[in-house]
Amino acid sequence: MATQGQIITCKAAVAWEPNKPLVIEDVQVAPPQAGEVRIKVLFTALCHTDAYTWSGKDPEGLFPCILGHEAAGIVESVGEGVTEVQPGDHVIPCYQAECRECKFCKSGKTNLCGKVRLATGVGVMLTDRQSRFSINGKPIYHFMGTSTFSQYTVVHDVSVAKIDPIAPLDKLIVIFWFHDLCIRYTLHIGLGAVWNTAKVEPGSIVAIFGLGTVGLAVAEGAKAAGASRIIGIDIDSKKYDTAKNFGVNEFINPKDHEKPIQQVIVDQTDGGVDYSFECIGNVSVMRAALECCHKGWGTSVIVGVAASGQEISTRPFQLVTGRVWKGTAFGGFKSRSQVPWLVDKYLKKEIKVDEYITHNLTLADINKAFDLMHEGGCLRVVLSMHV
Amino acid sequence: MATQGQIITCKAAVAWEPNKPLVIEDVQVAPPQAGEVRIKVLFTALCHTDAYTWSGKDPEGLFPCILGHEAAGIVESVGEGVTEVQPGDHVIPCYQAECRECKFCKSGKTNLCGKVRLATGVGVMLTDRQSRFSINGKPIYHFMGTSTFSQYTVVHDVSVAKIDPIAPLDKLIVIFWFHDLCIRYTLHIGLGAVWNTAKVEPGSIVAIFGLGTVGLAVAEGAKAAGASRIIGIDIDSKKYDTAKNFGVNEFINPKDHEKPIQQVIVDQTDGGVDYSFECIGNVSVMRAALECCHKGWGTSVIVGVAASGQEISTRPFQLVTGRVWKGTAFGGFKSRSQVPWLVDKYLKKEIKVDEYITHNLTLADINKAFDLMHEGGCLRVVLSMHV
Ligand SMILES: NC(=O)c1ccc[n+]([C@@H]2O[C@H](COP(=O)([O-])OP(=O)(O)OC[C@H]3O[C@@H](n4cnc5c(N)ncnc54)[C@H](O)[C@@H]3O)[C@@H](O)[C@H]2O)c1
Ligand SMILES: NC(=O)c1ccc[n+]([C@@H]2O[C@H](COP(=O)([O-])OP(=O)(O)OC[C@H]3O[C@@H](n4cnc5c(N)ncnc54)[C@H](O)[C@@H]3O)[C@@H](O)[C@H]2O)c1
Ligand SMILES: [Zn+2]
Ligand SMILES: [Zn+2]
Ligand SMILES: [Zn+2]
Ligand SMILES: [Zn+2]
Repeated sequence: MATQGQIITCKAAVAWEPNKPLVIEDVQVAPPQAGEVRIKVLFTALCHTDAYTWSGKDPEGLFPCILGHEAAGIVESVGEGVTEVQPGDHVIPCYQAECRECKFCKSGKTNLCGKVRLATGVGVMLTDRQSRFSINGKPIYHFMGTSTFSQYTVVHDVSVAKIDPIAPLDKLIVIFWFHDLCIRYTLHIGLGAVWNTAKVEPGSIVAIFGLGTVGLAVAEGAKAAGASRIIGIDIDSKKYDTAKNFGVNEFINPKDHEKPIQQVIVDQTDGGVDYSFECIGNVSVMRAALECCHKGWGTSVIVGVAASGQEISTRPFQLVTGRVWKGTAFGGFKSRSQVPWLVDKYLKKEIKVDEYITHNLTLADINKAFDLMHEGGCLRVVLSMHV
Repeated sequence: MATQGQIITCKAAVAWEPNKPLVIEDVQVAPPQAGEVRIKVLFTALCHTDAYTWSGKDPEGLFPCILGHEAAGIVESVGEGVTEVQPGDHVIPCYQAECRECKFCKSGKTNLCGKVRLATGVGVMLTDRQSRFSINGKPIYHFMGTSTFSQYTVVHDVSVAKIDPIAPLDKLIVIFWFHDLCIRYTLHIGLGAVWNTAKVEPGSIVAIFGLGTVGLAVAEGAKAAGASRIIGIDIDSKKYDTAKNFGVNEFINPKDHEKPIQQVIVDQTDGGVDYSFECIGNVSVMRAALECCHKGWGTSVIVGVAASGQEISTRPFQLVTGRVWKGTAFGGFKSRSQVPWLVDKYLKKEIKVDEYITHNLTLADINKAFDLMHEGGCLRVVLSMHV
């Protein structure tokens, strides 16, 4: 391609300072180095993880930076030694890498690849510990190894999931196709939590705390796994309407009860639920989610991300009497291996995708998109990369 | 038998008040009612669970009571409807019942049978909510459904594990035989924690916090499961000598280090252990035990029983990055089904037993036995029931 080996100047939404509106800037994107891939981003979505770092509450947040970690695009060029993708491939950049070589990848028990984390954790690339983004020579930090709020981004090859482009590439299909890829991230986080981390069995009773995008994806996964009762818990009762379409068949608003929510659930389920999922990021809800589990076998999975420094607690008796407390990062899915598998599931209509997208905007509207995120009816805002 | 249907007057160690020496008394033991079994106790051991209730710190402790929950004996008589044991059977009274009918027993996931708990939790029998022990008409509470510090005790039939008396019943063998049964409880707690709850794989790195009887049994289980490194952690370095015989092959005394113990372990194990077990009952050690686990898959099992009201805590990040926190009560073993299986394992010399017994005394010496328990060299004190 004409751009290969060249610096590309394109539009990106830059977070200059915590909590200040993002600014659409012309940024220079350096060519990929060894083991790196430069991607033309076609669609991106936003989630609370971006908002959290943007808010300045994330102690590991670095500024200025380019946020964004949910996206789909096409490989523009690749650096030395990159063999698994080539220009033109349809790809999803994954914040969770999968190198297939480190002890995490080899363990078969986790998806927490350790290969590039030291670099992505501090906003740079592994090879030279530099950023590939700059504005007039001033470096701009990467974010989560993805930085998808840019028309072009550079990521590590171990963080790229290649999608088989079986769908004909005419414009409408491409838009449709990539739209849903954009929300894959959220979607498989939820599905992963149910299918990999907790292994919900048919007939199980499941409680889901928080019916945002993540909670709905968990509900969908629980339904697919055959759960008989899927109890949604949210302080916003309007969430139940949408949630019904994702498998939630009972609803409790904690505000309607005097008793602690865990007690309400235990009472309504003859001793507690088989599985619970915290999809909010609130440490006291995490405790409630554990404590509403059935003695002897109930398993509670933390999916929500709590603010830094906060702690969960409970009486050890809760665990000694047979409850299990675990968490999920990236839903327990291996990124490069399993993302394509999920895309296939979608194409076969085994999982919902379109239903998660409630808004379509462009990169130029990104600040508005962040506002929308906090509104009632909003599940996922997908941005095309026009400005 | 001559005593069948009769009140038996025998010797028992009675805890009249918290923290006051036990007193050997003549107690009246009523005949077993429907679903109950009266046992002639031959040997009993003591453990911290008895000491905890005796100390008065257990908010559910009731006085006066007859403590004791680790024992072996012979069935003296049975109440109406009892079919699985009969007079003369060799049995172990189990504080954890197994009715094979409640939803816990049927779940296949837990050993926390719910059948008699409501009664045993308040020191009485299920049928009539009365105690079978009295002194001159004044009722004395049961303890944990076992009350083995008495020459005769009455327990629920669902709490009795029958042991096949394959060993010839001459005196010496009986003593030997029962001696080891007496410590089965502790032993299988440890083995259960490793085998059932955590499923340690060959080659695993295991950390065991607290090298008391329970910690040693965990070590033995971990060794049998093929763990390659078994790291014992104790504030008393003398414990390592004995622990070597049970499979512990590395030792760390937290007092020898400036850094938090979890950090010391993470440094020495290239990122953390595969399994950890807290065998002390200290909530801050429980946290350390979780946090010394390897990211991505490390599993921490709480075996120790913390004082009432205390809480465990950690950052949710610990779980979201793949660690699992669980507990074990009674090691995850079904009592009536699996206790006989463990006895067989012992007879086949697959598990150690004799090595746990460091002292042999009689019931008359029970207060001395409690003192011994807190001394360095002491693992298990076994009492024969003479006074
Ligand atoms: N583990 C992972 O891999 C991963 C990935 C993405 C997002 N997340 C996290 O998942 C969480 C949820 O994300 P989302 O996008 O679905 O958020 P969201 O804001 O769309 O949904 C949260 C829901 O929780 C409800 N809620 C808030 N406080 C509540 C309370 N006290 N009790 C009951 N309900 C309450 C809100 O009304 C809302 O419906 C966030 O913490 C996010 O960071 C985790
Ligand atoms: N879960 C169950 O089913 C079950 C059954 C029986 C006993 N238990 C519990 O297991 C625990 C251990 O029982 P045990 O009989 O082995 O006790 P023990 O007193 O014989 O052993 C405890 C050991 O921990 C060590 N220790 C104390 N504080 C420590 C610290 N801060 N760091 C490192 N080591 C420390 C002591 O030196 C001692 O060696 C108790 O809490 C007991 O109640 C649980
Ligand atoms: Zn996200
Ligand atoms: Zn890896
Ligand atoms: Zn005990
Ligand atoms: Zn039962």
